[in-house]
Amino acid sequence: MKHVSHKSIERLSAYRRLLQTARRTGLGSVYSHDLAEMSGGTAAQVRRDLMGIGCAGNPKTGYDVEELIECIGDFLDNPSVEPVALVGVGNLGRALLDFFSSHHPKLKTVAAFDIDPQKTGRVINGCRCYDIVDAKRVVADEKIQVAILAVPADVAQAVSEKLVDAGVAGFLNFAPERLRLPSRVVVENIDMTMALEKTVFLARHKSQV
Amino acid sequence: MKHVSHKSIERLSAYRRLLQTARRTGLGSVYSHDLAEMSGGTAAQVRRDLMGIGCAGNPKTGYDVEELIECIGDFLDNPSVEPVALVGVGNLGRALLDFFSSHHPKLKTVAAFDIDPQKTGRVINGCRCYDIVDAKRVVADEKIQVAILAVPADVAQAVSEKLVDAGVAGFLNFAPERLRLPSRVVVENIDMTMALEKTVFLARHKSQV
Repeated sequence: MKHVSHKSIERLSAYRRLLQTARRTGLGSVYSHDLAEMSGGTAAQVRRDLMGIGCAGNPKTGYDVEELIECIGDFLDNPSVEPVALVGVGNLGRALLDFFSSHHPKLKTVAAFDIDPQKTGRVINGCRCYDIVDAKRVVADEKIQVAILAVPADVAQAVSEKLVDAGVAGFLNFAPERLRLPSRVVVENIDMTMALEKTVFLARHKSQV
Repeated sequence: MKHVSHKSIERLSAYRRLLQTARRTGLGSVYSHDLAEMSGGTAAQVRRDLMGIGCAGNPKTGYDVEELIECIGDFLDNPSVEPVALVGVGNLGRALLDFFSSHHPKLKTVAAFDIDPQKTGRVINGCRCYDIVDAKRVVADEKIQVAILAVPADVAQAVSEKLVDAGVAGFLNFAPERLRLPSRVVVENIDMTMALEKTVFLARHKSQV
């Protein structure tokens, strides 16, 4: 695989979603400058990103929307459905179960983990909830590579270590805690508190910052 | 106010949270290299960030944890509690109400908005829910500057425009939709689908990217 930057991966994900929206409105083809305008980038950047993963357009007619969605999907998605786990079935965890099940057909939450005996052994929002002590078996059985971490900050490190031991290679981490894991493990943090603090600060100081 | 970069604001928010955790474990003082190690940056960066907002340490004893938390707070926080609104009281919205009410004493969700008559007029997770048609009055009465947007993608644009009309100056946007708003309005996007796609992709290709 050619080198594709993290930022380019993010933009490709965004292009695809914009294209899916455009498709729903009946759009058959787009030019790079259309995608640039939709995504807030430049046409040259769009062309570079798409060329980098081998998606070609026609200088006269632009990119075929359907083909481009497929081309980006060939690059970004696993050929089969990707099984992911949700860890921590509190309010946020349950909302994330719903959110991801309705937003992405190629990513399937196949297992949830918790320690609460009221939750383990049950099916919650369509997903079987296991005790975290069974992580090793379930992660292997379900071939889980990625876990969504929605546990309290004070247990996030210990829980993530258990999952790495079980074979998990990547985390989408919602816990407000910096995880210290082997460098081979991917950690993408969603820091909602930081994002809200930043929004509040910038909204207050907009003219000065 | 001096110019402070967006990245620096994010790091200051992260330092404060690390310091709060450190305080709970009884730590009285830290050196810049401790904070650097905790936050994954460099000591020089930490010192620059803190110097930039006028927080001083002692070369011998480091920074006093309590004083530093206060110094960062003086910069980041409103002197009084900041009233924010939640828009869209679905599963995600309710989880966010809980999350933010328990994670940040200086940010208070004073109003929720929805269009569902089952929800409007009620108090949900401790927060009064209003019909979005009353946005202008409620935003003015409660002096709301920032809204957390947790509505479906297809209504995000229209809803955010209504709130800008009502006086909202900043959005923390969870809707998978790029908002087109006047440039004076602050928009911070939390794109959970993109983050999960990226995590899955990188976990699968770690050795090659």
